[in-house]
Amino acid sequence: MPGSVCTKDIQKNINGSISTASSSPAITLTELQPLMANPDLPPKCENSQEDKREVDTVQQRSSNVRACRTRFLKAISYFSGDMKVFGKWMEKQFFLLKLLDWVLRGAAQVMFVNNPLSGLIIFAGLILQNYWWALNGFVGTLFATISALILQQNRGSIAAGLYGYNGILVGLLMAVFSHKGDWYWWLLLPNIFMSMMCPIVSSAIASINSRWDLPVFTLPFNILVCLHMAATGHYNHYFPQILFQPRSELANITWAEIDVAKLFMSVPVGVGQVYGCDNPWTGGIFIISLFISSPITCAHAVLGSAVGMVSGLALAAPFGDIYFGLWGYNCVLACIAVGGMFYALTWQVHLLAITCAFFCAYLGSAIANIMSTFGLPSCTWPFCLSAITFLLLTTETKKIYKLPLAKVNYPEKNLAYFWKMKKQEKMEKAEKERKENKEQRKALEEAVPINAGFVGVWSGSPPRPLARQRPRRLKIRRSRASSGTEPAGVTRLPTL
Amino acid sequence: MPGSVCTKDIQKNINGSISTASSSPAITLTELQPLMANPDLPPKCENSQEDKREVDTVQQRSSNVRACRTRFLKAISYFSGDMKVFGKWMEKQFFLLKLLDWVLRGAAQVMFVNNPLSGLIIFAGLILQNYWWALNGFVGTLFATISALILQQNRGSIAAGLYGYNGILVGLLMAVFSHKGDWYWWLLLPNIFMSMMCPIVSSAIASINSRWDLPVFTLPFNILVCLHMAATGHYNHYFPQILFQPRSELANITWAEIDVAKLFMSVPVGVGQVYGCDNPWTGGIFIISLFISSPITCAHAVLGSAVGMVSGLALAAPFGDIYFGLWGYNCVLACIAVGGMFYALTWQVHLLAITCAFFCAYLGSAIANIMSTFGLPSCTWPFCLSAITFLLLTTETKKIYKLPLAKVNYPEKNLAYFWKMKKQEKMEKAEKERKENKEQRKALEEAVPINAGFVGVWSGSPPRPLARQRPRRLKIRRSRASSGTEPAGVTRLPTL
Amino acid sequence: MPGSVCTKDIQKNINGSISTASSSPAITLTELQPLMANPDLPPKCENSQEDKREVDTVQQRSSNVRACRTRFLKAISYFSGDMKVFGKWMEKQFFLLKLLDWVLRGAAQVMFVNNPLSGLIIFAGLILQNYWWALNGFVGTLFATISALILQQNRGSIAAGLYGYNGILVGLLMAVFSHKGDWYWWLLLPNIFMSMMCPIVSSAIASINSRWDLPVFTLPFNILVCLHMAATGHYNHYFPQILFQPRSELANITWAEIDVAKLFMSVPVGVGQVYGCDNPWTGGIFIISLFISSPITCAHAVLGSAVGMVSGLALAAPFGDIYFGLWGYNCVLACIAVGGMFYALTWQVHLLAITCAFFCAYLGSAIANIMSTFGLPSCTWPFCLSAITFLLLTTETKKIYKLPLAKVNYPEKNLAYFWKMKKQEKMEKAEKERKENKEQRKALEEAVPINAGFVGVWSGSPPRPLARQRPRRLKIRRSRASSGTEPAGVTRLPTL
Repeated sequence: MPGSVCTKDIQKNINGSISTASSSPAITLTELQPLMANPDLPPKCENSQEDKREVDTVQQRSSNVRACRTRFLKAISYFSGDMKVFGKWMEKQFFLLKLLDWVLRGAAQVMFVNNPLSGLIIFAGLILQNYWWALNGFVGTLFATISALILQQNRGSIAAGLYGYNGILVGLLMAVFSHKGDWYWWLLLPNIFMSMMCPIVSSAIASINSRWDLPVFTLPFNILVCLHMAATGHYNHYFPQILFQPRSELANITWAEIDVAKLFMSVPVGVGQVYGCDNPWTGGIFIISLFISSPITCAHAVLGSAVGMVSGLALAAPFGDIYFGLWGYNCVLACIAVGGMFYALTWQVHLLAITCAFFCAYLGSAIANIMSTFGLPSCTWPFCLSAITFLLLTTETKKIYKLPLAKVNYPEKNLAYFWKMKKQEKMEKAEKERKENKEQRKALEEAVPINAGFVGVWSGSPPRPLARQRPRRLKIRRSRASSGTEPAGVTRLPTL
Repeated sequence: MPGSVCTKDIQKNINGSISTASSSPAITLTELQPLMANPDLPPKCENSQEDKREVDTVQQRSSNVRACRTRFLKAISYFSGDMKVFGKWMEKQFFLLKLLDWVLRGAAQVMFVNNPLSGLIIFAGLILQNYWWALNGFVGTLFATISALILQQNRGSIAAGLYGYNGILVGLLMAVFSHKGDWYWWLLLPNIFMSMMCPIVSSAIASINSRWDLPVFTLPFNILVCLHMAATGHYNHYFPQILFQPRSELANITWAEIDVAKLFMSVPVGVGQVYGCDNPWTGGIFIISLFISSPITCAHAVLGSAVGMVSGLALAAPFGDIYFGLWGYNCVLACIAVGGMFYALTWQVHLLAITCAFFCAYLGSAIANIMSTFGLPSCTWPFCLSAITFLLLTTETKKIYKLPLAKVNYPEKNLAYFWKMKKQEKMEKAEKERKENKEQRKALEEAVPINAGFVGVWSGSPPRPLARQRPRRLKIRRSRASSGTEPAGVTRLPTL
Repeated sequence: MPGSVCTKDIQKNINGSISTASSSPAITLTELQPLMANPDLPPKCENSQEDKREVDTVQQRSSNVRACRTRFLKAISYFSGDMKVFGKWMEKQFFLLKLLDWVLRGAAQVMFVNNPLSGLIIFAGLILQNYWWALNGFVGTLFATISALILQQNRGSIAAGLYGYNGILVGLLMAVFSHKGDWYWWLLLPNIFMSMMCPIVSSAIASINSRWDLPVFTLPFNILVCLHMAATGHYNHYFPQILFQPRSELANITWAEIDVAKLFMSVPVGVGQVYGCDNPWTGGIFIISLFISSPITCAHAVLGSAVGMVSGLALAAPFGDIYFGLWGYNCVLACIAVGGMFYALTWQVHLLAITCAFFCAYLGSAIANIMSTFGLPSCTWPFCLSAITFLLLTTETKKIYKLPLAKVNYPEKNLAYFWKMKKQEKMEKAEKERKENKEQRKALEEAVPINAGFVGVWSGSPPRPLARQRPRRLKIRRSRASSGTEPAGVTRLPTL
C-alpha cells in the first residue's frame, strides 16, 4: 500500500511542484504510533494531499477499511509495546497499585520487555511451574523495587521495572538452586537481603557501563546469585546449594538415541530457562507474553533458543543438557539484545544477532565448565559477556546502528526512530540537491525552449537535471521498502 | 556551649543589625582546626563580638576554663588527625628521618590513617605479635616507598604514606603465608621484589580507578600477594605457601559448644587480622592507634568487626574461623571506608556503612571459597570489591555525599568540609532571602508606624518578615546540632 | 662524525651569525629515513653549509664512502622497518595480492612487527615446525582478515595486519592444543569460526582499552582460545583438548642434572613458543625475522627470553618447562612491548622493560597455575596483563615517555619521533633564550667598547650571555649522543 502512495508522490514531484516536505509530517507522526510505524501512513498522506478534489467511491471504501484497521491497531497499541498510555494512567493511581505495576514490568524486563501485561503472564507461567519459586520471584522483585525507592534511584527507571528484573531473577534462582527444597521459609531472609542489594550493585555497574553507553543487563543478578551460592556452597548447614561438579569423563552420546520431539521441545524450554523453568508450557507462555509486547523480540527469542540447541549438538553436549534448555536461555537473551533491542534491526544486524547467539552458546559452554570448578552454575554470565562484546563492536558501516542507550525502547519503536533519523538525513540531502537542481533547471530553462522541457518530462526523457533527480528519489523509497521487510511483517501481524 | 553563642547570635541579629557575616569567619576557621570543628568556635565568636564592653567575672572565669580547654585541644591536635604540623616540621628534616615518617604513615594508611604516631603504635603491635613478621612488614613498607621515589611518583602521596601501605601488607602477609616458618631469610628477596612492584601496580590501578574517582584501596597488595602465592604455590622448593583447600564437607557446628568470651574477643582479633595478626592484644593496640587519629574511624572499625562476627554466625561458618577474626577484617576496612572516610558521615551513610559491612562479610565468604580452589587466601579482595561497589553507588539524595577524592582526609575533617559546604549553600540561600526580607521590611516600615515594629520585636510577635527570618536561622543552627551528633562526641572526647 | 659538525656549528654560531635553524631541516629529515635516524645527518648538514667554498680531497673521498653507505642503507630500508614503500606499491595491486600482504603482515604483528618479509620468514619457520600447524595458522590469519573486511573495520589497521595477528595465534594454538593430533580436518570449522570472531572481540576490547590509549595486545586470542578450550575441554567427543592439570606434588629439581646446552637453547625456543613452536631452529628463524624489521625489537626479544629462563630457575620451576620455553614467550612479548615499542627507548625504559619481563615471568607462573585448575593453558595472558600494567604506569619523569597510540611504529621510528619532539622543545627554549641573549648583547654592546667584545669571543672568554649559551648547546648535542647508544648500534648494524 505505501508503495502506491510513493509512486504517486514521485509523479507529483516530477509534475512540477516540489514538496517533499509533505511527507515529513507523516514521518514525525509515525513515531507517535505506539507499535507500528507504517499502517496509518496512508490516511495521513491523504490529509496532506488536500489539493486532490475528485475522490472516487472505490477509494472511499478502501479508506473505510483502513480506518477500521487503524482503530483496531490503536486498540492493540493499548496493551502491546510498552503500554505507555496505561503507564501514564497508572501515575495517578495510589502507591500500592503503582508498585504492582512496577513489579510486573520488572518481571517482564528480564526479557527487555517493558509491559505489565507480559509481566502478569510471566507470573502465571511461573505459578504453573512452581508456587514456591513464583513466590520467591515475587518477593525478590518487590524488595528490589522497594530498595531502589529507599535509595532514591531514578523514578523513571523504577517505573520501567529496571530495578526489578534483577530482583526476580535473584529470588527465583536462589529458590531453584537451594538444596533444601521448596517451602524452606528461612530462604526468604537471604532472598530479601540479596534483592535489596540489587539496586546498589545495579547502580555501581551502571556507573561503569555508562561510560561505554552499555546497559547493566543481568550482571547484578549474576553477581549476587553467585555471591550467595559461593558464600554458602553445597556444604552449609543453613543454606546449602545444589552440587555442581566439573565434567571428568566423556559424556555418552549415541546419535541413535536422540529424541527429536524433545529436541524441538527444547526451544520453548530454552525460553523458559531464562527464568529457571524447565516446563515447556511455561516456556510457551513466556513466548506468548513476548509476542504481545513485541513480535520482533519474540521471533529473536525463539531463534536464539534454536541456535543454542544447534550449538549444543555441534559441540557434542550431552543430550540431557540440550533437552533441559541449558544451551538455549543465554542465546535467547543475547539474540533479543542484539537483534533489534540495542541495535536498529536491519538484515545485517539480524545476521549479527545470529552470530552473537552462536558465540553466546560457545561462551555458555565455556563458562559453565569454568564455573562448575567452583560449584557454581553459569547463570546468565554468557549472555552478559557476549552481548557486551557485540555492543562494544564498532564498524564503519551505517547499516549496523547502535542506538544511544537513552533512546532504546522496544525493537519496533527503535526501528521507527532509526528510519526517522535516516529519512531526516536523506531529506536534508535531497533538499540540498533540489536547490542545486532548481538552479540548474533555471539555467536550462533559460537555454532550452519551454515546450521541449515539458515534452521531455512526459516522454520519459527529461532534461538531465531531472533525470538525475528521479533515480535518487526512487532509491529513497526502495531503501525504505527493502529494509522494511520486518515492519511489513509487523503490519500484517494484528490481522492474524 | 556553641548553643548559647548561637542564641545570643540570633538575638543580636534580631536586635537590629543584620550581620550574619559574623558567623562566616568562624566557619572558615573551623576547617583550619586540625581535628575538631567546634571547640574553639566560642573564643573566635567572642573576638568577633568586639562591641561587647561589659564582661562580668563569671563569664571571665568560664572563658579561662575555655582557654585551658582550647590549649588542651590544641595540644591534642598536634598528634591526632593527620599530624599536619608535625608533617610540615618534618619537611625540613634530613632524608632518613623523613623516610621514617613516610614509612610510619604508610603502616597506618592500611586503616586509612595518615598519622606517624598511629604507625608507630601499629609497629609495636606487630612486634608484640611476631618479630619476623614485623621485620618483613617494615622491609615491605621501606622498599615500596623507595621504589615510589625511584619511579618519581607524586611526592605528596609518598609523604602521606600512600605508597607504603601496600608494601607493609605485602611484606607481612608473605611472611604470614610462607610455609617455611619464621626467619627464612631468602623470603626477603621476593618480599623486596614484590614491595618494589607495589608503586607500579598502584600507579596502573590508579590510572583506571581515577576515571571513577575511586582510590586504589589495597588492590595492589591483593594482586601482588596472590601473584606470589599462585606463582609458587604449596608445592615449591624455595617459597612454599601454606596449603589452602576448598571445603568439601559439612563443618561441625554445635551451638552448645560456642565460647562467648572468644566470640567477643573476635572483635579486636578481627581488627588485628587486617595486618594478619591473631593476637587480641595486638588488635587492641591497633584500635588504640585508630582512636588517637580519628575516633570515627575507630568506632567504625569496631562496628565492622562486630558485623563480620554476626554474619559469620548467620551463614553457619565454623566457629574457629570466627574466633580467628577471618570474618572481621574485611568488614572493618569496608565499614571504615564507607562510614565517614569517602562519604561524609550522616546517619544515612552510617546505615550504608553497616550494610556495606554485611555485604562485605557475605562477599568475604564467597571469595574465600572461590580462592581456596586455587590454594589462595581471600586477602582483602572482599573489602576492595564491596567498597568499590558502594562508592560507585549514585543516588538522588543529598544526604549521601561522596567526597571528591582530592578532598578526602580523615572522617572528622571530611565532616567539617561537608558542613562548610552545606552552610555556604544555605548562607547563599539565606543571603538571598534576607535581601528579599529587607525589601519587604522597607515596604512594611513605610506602611507600619516605627514604634509598633519595635514593640513587635520585643514582645515576641515581630512583624511577619522577621518571624519568617527567625525560624530559618534557628533551622541552620539546629541542622548543625542534629547532624552534629558525631562531632559532639568528638568534642567530648578529649575530656575523657 | 656528527660530533665534529656540532663543534663547528657552535663555533659558527659564536662567530656571529645566529642560525640554529640550519640544524632543524636535518632533524625533520631524520624521521623521513625509514630505519636509521643518524647516518645521513652529515651529508645533509653539509648541504646546509653552502657557504663553505673550499672542500679538500680527503673530505670528498669520505663523502663518497658516505654516499655509498647512504645508498646501501636506502636499499636496506626497502625491506626493513615497516616496508612503507612496498606497502604503498601494494595498494595499487589486485585484491588477492593485497590480501596476501595483509596476511603476512598479520603473521608478523604477533611480535609487533609490521613487515610482510618477516611474516614470510615466520611462515617458513612454522612450516619447518609442523605443516598442519602452519596451515591452521594461515587459515586463521586469512579468515580473521576477511572477517574484518566484512565487518568494515578500519582499512589502515587491516592493511597493517592488526586484524590478522590474533587470527594466526587462534589458528595455531587451537591446532597445538587439540588432542586429536594433526590433520584432523574438522578442526578447521571451529578454527574458522573463532578466527572470524577475532575482529569482533578486537573491536570490543579496543573500545574499552582506547579509553586509556592502550592497544588490544593478544587479548582477543587469549579470550577466544580459552573460550574454545573451556567450551570443549578434555572430555569432548568432537574437539577434545590436551589435558592440563594443576601441580599436586613437589617437582623433582636436582641441580646436578641441569643441562646447560638446553638451558641456552631455551632462549630461541622461548621466542618460538610465542607461536607455540618448540623447535629451536624455528625460534632462530623468528629471531632473524625480527632482526630484519627492527634490531631493537630483536634484542629485547632475546633479552626477554633470557630473563624468563632466569626467573624460572629462581622460582624453582621444573627444568623441563624451562627447556620447553614456557617461561620465555610471555617475557619476550612483554619486553618488546615495553622496551621501545610503546615507550620511547631510553635507558630508564630499558630497565623498565627488564623489570616488566621479570614481573611477567612471575605472573606467567601464577596464571599457569590458576588456569590449570580449569584445564587451560596460560596462553599469553601474563604478557597482556603485565604489559597493560606497565603501560598504565604514570610517573613525573620525562625519561619514561609513553608514545600516543596513534604515533606508535617500530622502536627505531618511535625513537626518531621522541628525539624530534625533544629537540623541538629544546629548540623553542633555545630560541627564547637566544632572543634574551640578543637583547642582553645589545645592551652589552652599548655598554662595552666593540673591540673588547670581539676579543672576548675569540679568546674563549666571551661576554657572559654567550658563555651561558655555549654549555646549553653542548648539552643538546651530548644528550643526543648519550641517549643515542642504541641508534649508534643500529648504525653499525647494516655494515655487519
